Amino acid sequence: MEYVAIVIVLALLQYFAFGLLVGRARGKFNVHAPAITGHPVFERYYRVHQNTLELMIMFIPAIVLFGYWIRPDMGAGIGFVYVIGRFIYLRAYIGDPAQRGLGFALSILPILVLLIGGGIAAILSLL
Amino acid sequence: MEYVAIVIVLALLQYFAFGLLVGRARGKFNVHAPAITGHPVFERYYRVHQNTLELMIMFIPAIVLFGYWIRPDMGAGIGFVYVIGRFIYLRAYIGDPAQRGLGFALSILPILVLLIGGGIAAILSLL
Amino acid sequence: MEYVAIVIVLALLQYFAFGLLVGRARGKFNVHAPAITGHPVFERYYRVHQNTLELMIMFIPAIVLFGYWIRPDMGAGIGFVYVIGRFIYLRAYIGDPAQRGLGFALSILPILVLLIGGGIAAILSLL
Repeated sequence: MEYVAIVIVLALLQYFAFGLLVGRARGKFNVHAPAITGHPVFERYYRVHQNTLELMIMFIPAIVLFGYWIRPDMGAGIGFVYVIGRFIYLRAYIGDPAQRGLGFALSILPILVLLIGGGIAAILSLL
Repeated sequence: MEYVAIVIVLALLQYFAFGLLVGRARGKFNVHAPAITGHPVFERYYRVHQNTLELMIMFIPAIVLFGYWIRPDMGAGIGFVYVIGRFIYLRAYIGDPAQRGLGFALSILPILVLLIGGGIAAILSLL
Repeated sequence: MEYVAIVIVLALLQYFAFGLLVGRARGKFNVHAPAITGHPVFERYYRVHQNTLELMIMFIPAIVLFGYWIRPDMGAGIGFVYVIGRFIYLRAYIGDPAQRGLGFALSILPILVLLIGGGIAAILSLL
């Protein structure tokens, strides 16, 4: 499961970096805590971080289940597509939130493959 | 731990479906990203998804700890009550947020049983 | 891994208590669901809970990876610093959000040590 662990660490460091971008945007656009609105570009950074959190709670269990019941190296590979997808999502969302579709698809599809694959493998291992 | 894994996958697919409802509500009530306010019914869908995320971070570790240190089949059964509780929460909250009490209780109580049970079992296994 | 499990349960119960404070602040400052704004002190409680959720998704995988690939007792000790750091964060943020720096540092630094330490140990175990 080392490859799975390494991809989880990568995904969490990326998520942490997105959080640093939110902090930087607070200063740059003068949005003081606890406010989470007040400047449209700040709100984009905030939503990218938030949406990444919303996916992370699926991503981590999904890659662990897939890695454990199917194959860890394949799980890590699919998980890496998610990390790339998140970078595309960040770039697109900051430029124009309406363009976030591709990056979102490239992050949610790998998660669904991992989650549904892992779930089916868990069911099959019961039979 | 197969039963625990299957209930985790179910709970995450339910959470994913709640996220799809938020996306649909964005279109229906004309609330464009990155906004998360603007129409009261959209805000209800958003908060249901958000509250489910807030619980999921407790639910997944709790069911794993309970399943590992006590019994996986019992953990999966208690976890299934959480999934039912979340459906009741969704229906009540969308109708009238003030009616969310029962659904919330049926989702948080199973989590607390899993978490505190798993924690006590971990402490006992040290003795 | 019992010590790691016990610290995870502690951190999640603390997070749950922060959620109860948000619920109490809803009543006290008359902010009805689904609203998440409307009174500055309510917003502070809300953001403390939210920020703790944002960190928890890193904390739990990080302490598990560190405990598994390095040492569980050391991981639990570093994780306990995180729990203390969160209490300091809560107290500072409620008083004045601008003073949240120390509490935030004492919660994010233990997480980064656990996460990066665990990631490096996973890489080394491949060699």
